[in-house]
Amino acid sequence: MEELRSRLADINALRAASSMMEWDQQTYMPPGGAEARSEHLGRLSKLAHELFTSDETLRLIEESKPGAAGDDADMLRVVSRDAYLATKLPTELVEEKSRLAAVAHEEWVKARKENDFKGFASTLERMFDIARQEAELLGYTKERYDALLDLYEEGATAADARVMFEALKEQVELVHAIAELPEVDDSILYGNWSIPAQKEFTEFLVKSIGFDMQRGRQDTAPHPFCSGWSRGDVRLTTRYGSYLPGSIFGSLHEAGHGMYEQGTPAKWDLTPLAGGVSLGLHESQSRTWENLVGRSLGFWEHFFPSMAGYFPELSGLTAKEFYRLVNKVKRSFIRTEADELTYNLHVMTRFEIESDILDGRLAVKDLPEAWNAKYQAYLGITPETDSVGCLQDVHWSMGSIGYFPTYSMGNLLSYQIWAKLENDLGDSQELIQAGRFEPILGWLQEKIYTKARQLKPKDLVLEVTGKPMGAEDYLRGLGKKYRELYEL
Amino acid sequence: MEELRSRLADINALRAASSMMEWDQQTYMPPGGAEARSEHLGRLSKLAHELFTSDETLRLIEESKPGAAGDDADMLRVVSRDAYLATKLPTELVEEKSRLAAVAHEEWVKARKENDFKGFASTLERMFDIARQEAELLGYTKERYDALLDLYEEGATAADARVMFEALKEQVELVHAIAELPEVDDSILYGNWSIPAQKEFTEFLVKSIGFDMQRGRQDTAPHPFCSGWSRGDVRLTTRYGSYLPGSIFGSLHEAGHGMYEQGTPAKWDLTPLAGGVSLGLHESQSRTWENLVGRSLGFWEHFFPSMAGYFPELSGLTAKEFYRLVNKVKRSFIRTEADELTYNLHVMTRFEIESDILDGRLAVKDLPEAWNAKYQAYLGITPETDSVGCLQDVHWSMGSIGYFPTYSMGNLLSYQIWAKLENDLGDSQELIQAGRFEPILGWLQEKIYTKARQLKPKDLVLEVTGKPMGAEDYLRGLGKKYRELYEL
Repeated sequence: MEELRSRLADINALRAASSMMEWDQQTYMPPGGAEARSEHLGRLSKLAHELFTSDETLRLIEESKPGAAGDDADMLRVVSRDAYLATKLPTELVEEKSRLAAVAHEEWVKARKENDFKGFASTLERMFDIARQEAELLGYTKERYDALLDLYEEGATAADARVMFEALKEQVELVHAIAELPEVDDSILYGNWSIPAQKEFTEFLVKSIGFDMQRGRQDTAPHPFCSGWSRGDVRLTTRYGSYLPGSIFGSLHEAGHGMYEQGTPAKWDLTPLAGGVSLGLHESQSRTWENLVGRSLGFWEHFFPSMAGYFPELSGLTAKEFYRLVNKVKRSFIRTEADELTYNLHVMTRFEIESDILDGRLAVKDLPEAWNAKYQAYLGITPETDSVGCLQDVHWSMGSIGYFPTYSMGNLLSYQIWAKLENDLGDSQELIQAGRFEPILGWLQEKIYTKARQLKPKDLVLEVTGKPMGAEDYLRGLGKKYRELYEL
Repeated sequence: MEELRSRLADINALRAASSMMEWDQQTYMPPGGAEARSEHLGRLSKLAHELFTSDETLRLIEESKPGAAGDDADMLRVVSRDAYLATKLPTELVEEKSRLAAVAHEEWVKARKENDFKGFASTLERMFDIARQEAELLGYTKERYDALLDLYEEGATAADARVMFEALKEQVELVHAIAELPEVDDSILYGNWSIPAQKEFTEFLVKSIGFDMQRGRQDTAPHPFCSGWSRGDVRLTTRYGSYLPGSIFGSLHEAGHGMYEQGTPAKWDLTPLAGGVSLGLHESQSRTWENLVGRSLGFWEHFFPSMAGYFPELSGLTAKEFYRLVNKVKRSFIRTEADELTYNLHVMTRFEIESDILDGRLAVKDLPEAWNAKYQAYLGITPETDSVGCLQDVHWSMGSIGYFPTYSMGNLLSYQIWAKLENDLGDSQELIQAGRFEPILGWLQEKIYTKARQLKPKDLVLEVTGKPMGAEDYLRGLGKKYRELYEL
């Protein structure tokens, strides 16, 4: 076990190195660094993969199993699953993907900037090819998508996702009802906002809710993300644009991910038990802090006065007016800036498209057309450019294909967990309005963050909420919020 | 050879990862990241060391030698020396040093900030212990220092350094002669200078002289340094303080290092032939751009008008007055901010102290006293605190012991190379005054940067200047400059 632990620590160091190089690539790397970065990431991921899937490591895992108990047993379960999945993929494929991702990221940045889907299409096609190969190698009973989704959300299938989206279609009616009302004028939220003020205010917010800046920091990236290589060093990113709430809710979102990572127990830091248990659970936490906390009335009753200090242009508004504006239902193009109500329709679009491309029902070259048609069907709008359409997100360029449904799972779970939290703590709006975030963070830490990867995701949901994932709490919570907001 | 190349590329990726983690540690890492960083750096350096010194790598090197010619032969010579030196040091010691360095860096930052040498002493003692062990393992004929210096400057010995410093003592007279003149009042250079203006102006300067910002960037660090992991990604750092020339000449200095790194031929990028050939040669380039270019009258005749735009407080000065001010001989405490004339006296102090500690003539606990006594003897001043005394530099905390003489070697070489450059290009001041840096950079690129590590340092000096390293050009050039400046 000692020997295994040391070997896993070597692997952890290699992965931390890759993760840091990826973070740097999206925050500070000059353009000239792309080629070498691709080479280095390829080499590091090959070394980590070789070490993890070596006979010696697999032997150490098997030999450590008999008699293992407590943390050791949990760690061996997690490592066994990871190793099982990793041995399915040959080193060459892992390396090829990592190299392609580094190149693809630069191409994607350029393509989005220049609205040039064609300049990205052949690389994207190669990325989907790799995803198909991965699915075949990992194996599945029904469809390729299942193999990929399981990597991110243990046990979930494309069929599950379809059931979930079917239930969520209940939202479409409400979206249509709201679309018939006069449009809320939120033009005051757009402007040439000071970047230093946005930086200061968003850092003030994430610190206020409990993100520990001594154990993390915030930078900027074209597509915000959260990364980290220990519970003591968690990196948020945000993006400063002309729509002020973009950086504010982006920062709160990533801070939700970040606090989950910072909440790993010290004893598990740098081990396979560290971090979040699944993408769905991770997303539930980012959405909790972004939406259930950040987009609530109490939050702005507490923070609006200081916000108006940073952005005097808004000082004519009341907290409640600001709350209404940032919850405007918009039928917009950009998922990350979508309101809660239309958000899942973006996710559904991407899920259906990924699934169609993987199974050959759609060619990559026809992607923009298919994308735009679905936006017209579900949201009643057509993206004006591919930059705000199918090129908007970074994930495909990273080879992250097959995990989008976890975004919607995160939405569902955030409400389901919140219902339980309110059951234990009482009215959350009272706490939030008073700026008392410690009881909320404390509850989430105790129930979720300190569990890290110890339980399986489905078991964790059951333990925390007393039932399997479902759409009821979500649909009820969201329906109530938006019917009140729009007086329907 | 192909197999060896791939293995060396793996090692290059591991070293790039370490180098990037070290860069991050000094630029962006939050305090909470220190412990894990130490662990990760230790693991990565262990993995690189193991891979480099493995029987398989050594076998590949030996088997590739017969029949190797051209670049391959040069690469094998370089790799053989590196491997020879690396196999002398056991993995455990390398790992221990790397771990200690990560912890020591944090302790040094704190100790310097709080002027608390005692809080750093026991860690520093451990670092010198490791240096002693390294020297014993590497072997030497005369004194421990030789073994360490050779790591940085192939073939140089402590005895060589003593001869050099003896010749440089000729400078002390001039320092004393100047000290008897009325002190130049440069108080106008101190102030609460705008950080954004310093950032913009220093980036404008380094771009103007030829540092390629598409293949690099500039950040800030408590102790400025230059790092990089490919010719396409070279990172400068600088420091913004109350003494304006600090950031200006710091940036020019690091840009000199950076342009050397950016000048590696593309075909050698990421191979053992990439980069600078020795610390002395590297320093000669940073000092060239800092002093021979940056601290010249022509440079400020060209740049002073734009500078006065960034810092209107200085617009009352003339270019020539500014030139005089930034060449003030000051007998100050901080080496990195020292004028050219007193610089070597700082280096000499540290060399003598390192040598005394390594051979047991001085105990670490008595270091501040010895340091201050030498400053009194050579410079006629005593540091007011250890923060501006023996705690000023980062190097010991990194375990970089035994290379300080290369700073003075760099000074000598910069003048020796410059004499040859002027011989080829004519009066350099005409070019500099006209802002024509391409011929200068082009000459240095052709003669030095494109050679990377292909030749041995002594052979390169001989090839470029036609003679071995000596003090004549330096003493003549410096004497002329300062006698003119002070009308002696």
